[in-house]
Amino acid sequence: MREKKVFTHFNEGGEARMVDVSQKGATMREAIAHGSISMNRETFRMIVDKRIAKGDVLGVARVAGIMGAKRTADLIPMCHPLNITNVEINFFPSQGENKIEIEARVKIKGQTGVEMEAFLAVATAALTIYDMCKAVDRGMIISDIHLVEKKGGKSGTFRWKGERKDAHKG
Amino acid sequence: MREKKVFTHFNEGGEARMVDVSQKGATMREAIAHGSISMNRETFRMIVDKRIAKGDVLGVARVAGIMGAKRTADLIPMCHPLNITNVEINFFPSQGENKIEIEARVKIKGQTGVEMEAFLAVATAALTIYDMCKAVDRGMIISDIHLVEKKGGKSGTFRWKGERKDAHKG
Amino acid sequence: MREKKVFTHFNEGGEARMVDVSQKGATMREAIAHGSISMNRETFRMIVDKRIAKGDVLGVARVAGIMGAKRTADLIPMCHPLNITNVEINFFPSQGENKIEIEARVKIKGQTGVEMEAFLAVATAALTIYDMCKAVDRGMIISDIHLVEKKGGKSGTFRWKGERKDAHKG
Amino acid sequence: MREKKVFTHFNEGGEARMVDVSQKGATMREAIAHGSISMNRETFRMIVDKRIAKGDVLGVARVAGIMGAKRTADLIPMCHPLNITNVEINFFPSQGENKIEIEARVKIKGQTGVEMEAFLAVATAALTIYDMCKAVDRGMIISDIHLVEKKGGKSGTFRWKGERKDAHKG
Amino acid sequence: MREKKVFTHFNEGGEARMVDVSQKGATMREAIAHGSISMNRETFRMIVDKRIAKGDVLGVARVAGIMGAKRTADLIPMCHPLNITNVEINFFPSQGENKIEIEARVKIKGQTGVEMEAFLAVATAALTIYDMCKAVDRGMIISDIHLVEKKGGKSGTFRWKGERKDAHKG
Amino acid sequence: MREKKVFTHFNEGGEARMVDVSQKGATMREAIAHGSISMNRETFRMIVDKRIAKGDVLGVARVAGIMGAKRTADLIPMCHPLNITNVEINFFPSQGENKIEIEARVKIKGQTGVEMEAFLAVATAALTIYDMCKAVDRGMIISDIHLVEKKGGKSGTFRWKGERKDAHKG
Repeated sequence: MREKKVFTHFNEGGEARMVDVSQKGATMREAIAHGSISMNRETFRMIVDKRIAKGDVLGVARVAGIMGAKRTADLIPMCHPLNITNVEINFFPSQGENKIEIEARVKIKGQTGVEMEAFLAVATAALTIYDMCKAVDRGMIISDIHLVEKKGGKSGTFRWKGERKDAHKG
Repeated sequence: MREKKVFTHFNEGGEARMVDVSQKGATMREAIAHGSISMNRETFRMIVDKRIAKGDVLGVARVAGIMGAKRTADLIPMCHPLNITNVEINFFPSQGENKIEIEARVKIKGQTGVEMEAFLAVATAALTIYDMCKAVDRGMIISDIHLVEKKGGKSGTFRWKGERKDAHKG
Repeated sequence: MREKKVFTHFNEGGEARMVDVSQKGATMREAIAHGSISMNRETFRMIVDKRIAKGDVLGVARVAGIMGAKRTADLIPMCHPLNITNVEINFFPSQGENKIEIEARVKIKGQTGVEMEAFLAVATAALTIYDMCKAVDRGMIISDIHLVEKKGGKSGTFRWKGERKDAHKG
Repeated sequence: MREKKVFTHFNEGGEARMVDVSQKGATMREAIAHGSISMNRETFRMIVDKRIAKGDVLGVARVAGIMGAKRTADLIPMCHPLNITNVEINFFPSQGENKIEIEARVKIKGQTGVEMEAFLAVATAALTIYDMCKAVDRGMIISDIHLVEKKGGKSGTFRWKGERKDAHKG
Repeated sequence: MREKKVFTHFNEGGEARMVDVSQKGATMREAIAHGSISMNRETFRMIVDKRIAKGDVLGVARVAGIMGAKRTADLIPMCHPLNITNVEINFFPSQGENKIEIEARVKIKGQTGVEMEAFLAVATAALTIYDMCKAVDRGMIISDIHLVEKKGGKSGTFRWKGERKDAHKG
Repeated sequence: MREKKVFTHFNEGGEARMVDVSQKGATMREAIAHGSISMNRETFRMIVDKRIAKGDVLGVARVAGIMGAKRTADLIPMCHPLNITNVEINFFPSQGENKIEIEARVKIKGQTGVEMEAFLAVATAALTIYDMCKAVDRGMIISDIHLVEKKGGKSGTFRWKGERKDAHKG
């Protein structure tokens, strides 16, 4: 429906506002976000193989990502403050590509969704990996930060559908 | 030099620490980071063409990005708290690709660099764009977050060298 | 009733405390606060007339005000942390007086009211206007910060009744 | 000089930015801000006369104001993070007017001024007084928040010159 | 039961996570924590006897402790953000021992307990006492920070049982 | 000297203030603080022996402690905001006593000392250990938080002198 296409974070006058969710009921909601960070082969091996370089890069990044999810409303202007009830972050090293895939899962029983909290978890974890490794590799790239899945709430379920780039050309 | 390849954020025992910059002099430093967010054509036009949808998405994202740079030490565990002296964020809409390129520039006269501050500015701006537009497009992707340039400090100047993907395969 | 006149934020021993709202039910609550900032005619025109000086002062102040409302419990010692569900900020330029009137509206379904959140939105927006314009006018004055209306909760509805100054003399 | 009248917090394109103070030297700076809160006679007496109502309203407000000054860069989008070196807050009860005058003084040796820090101290202290007393008086008004004096830095000394309202009509 | 002894803040792979409380109902919960700070006799008398040294050390520490309880989720990585509904802090000067006993009581109607919030209140209050007095006594010791009581939630009631040291040897 | 015994955080009127360090030069400063957490033998072994229970409790606590040091000025009312240049946290498990000794070391080149930052690192690390283990042991005790050493600044060097308890009786 064309007429649905409005930015809900602006009023009719084009002024930014926090969307009013006062009347919405508290329901179970969950969001999963994804991102990745690619690097030099040596950096990748230093992160993944503890025999080469001591220090748990991913452990620190996981703590940072969980804490980052809790700061979402401090950072994203129109986000509602939320009492998230669960955050989990998983790292999937992809050896062929010298890349760490990052997945964050956030839950709440609340009046609005937790997509942004999942994104903050992913972004904070990725940037922490960069920070922990930047002395050996300043050329790392963070990419493919996107929503994987969202459940709960009036807008229903969203699931990421693989080949994205074409869709964007559309 | 092989022996340079150590994670400075861990001590010899593999324990995380904030790197000691107590003895370093305060010098002029600057960092430029880049990122991009791609989206549906309609979303792109709603952001760029004010006649279609009212509301200054990029204006809100710019404010968020500047404020995000100031929260770097709160979010990234080993980052030193820093009194940054300048933040600027530029958006470059790329119409053919339905993509907004984001560039953040941070300066300081201080004892350590401001790469992470520039990254936080980019990431916060990109996530704010996502948040402002997610009601119309949940499939946006944030990508290509990387350091463009870094000046000042003992490690000298870093400049991003174009074709990155191959380097990472190496 | 005279015996109602006690400071609820102190116990009988005169010691500060966060008021106990544990047993209160979650009800719909709303608060509207007002403030104003007056300035030189030229500054006023620079803010209001975009042809004179570029830059959306009120747009930045609106974002700051919304974010400020979310920091209320961080700043006001005895305020409960709250998950506000809506913030809206309106600016009313008053040309004859070279003054911007500021109104903030905050909602929640919660155990306590959101007056302080509305005040923080107004104060942060007003101070941001000051900050954005101080290079051209250091003599701006912020005034008339008061509660306009409060609804919901046991203490019922409050509405501001015009001529205030006399009441204060009483 | 007419050509000085530009908003330094926007670039030529009208885009908000943190002003670049990288090249400025660190000098001694001081700012004094003022504000007031007026109230019912009974509320005023409860605050000022400890025999009537126990509880040190102004003591709590002073702590809040000092802490508020430290949060300036978190709240005001374009403010530089600063290491302020002194904050003092004084309250002057004005019995005839049932009003508390608030004065905050902030110092730094730094690259930019601390006016906004002084304002945050005043505003946070005033709002805390409101919060501590709102159970007995919801009609309090916060007014006359203005800069009293500013010293140091390239723009030199500013001193508030009494009768303000006429100036604003001009 | 031996098999109950698992760290709930780690998954089976040993990875840190915020415990999932999404499915838990909101119930009344309360936690009481204790701590103490011991000092020189003179420092003790300066705090307790207002005739000797002016300044309400415990008043400032109480405000700090209440505000500290609200920052729990910002500081303790796996703590859920919570809307606590009550914080009270009591100080018990113990003259014979030149010691201030600190007790904090926190309540909530929520999905998880508030032990950590009570601990943060105690620790922040104790450290504030240290900070306020350190110019006269750098040798103060903070000790005996422990949980006194916890009520509500599935794990039921916990009560501290006096002689602790032996239990720890066991 | 008797006349030195004044609380510098209060003025002559007994009003709290941030101590004025504007005129002090920036010198190298360092502070070391200590604390300990004692627990049941089983909990101790779960933390120390990774074969028994997976999960790096001390790794998470170290990250939290480093981040906690950076929040000192947010939590302790009269603390100056500081750009600390180094934080290191060491844990010393004491098997006979089922106790983890915690030591934090903080450095800065600045106008005032970093004792409170070292204390915040210790307290945050200790409370994080409690939080991570509380599902298996609610009776843990945090004790012996004291300053070990302080160097730099006008007040010179402080070193902790062993047997403390007697001193406190005096």
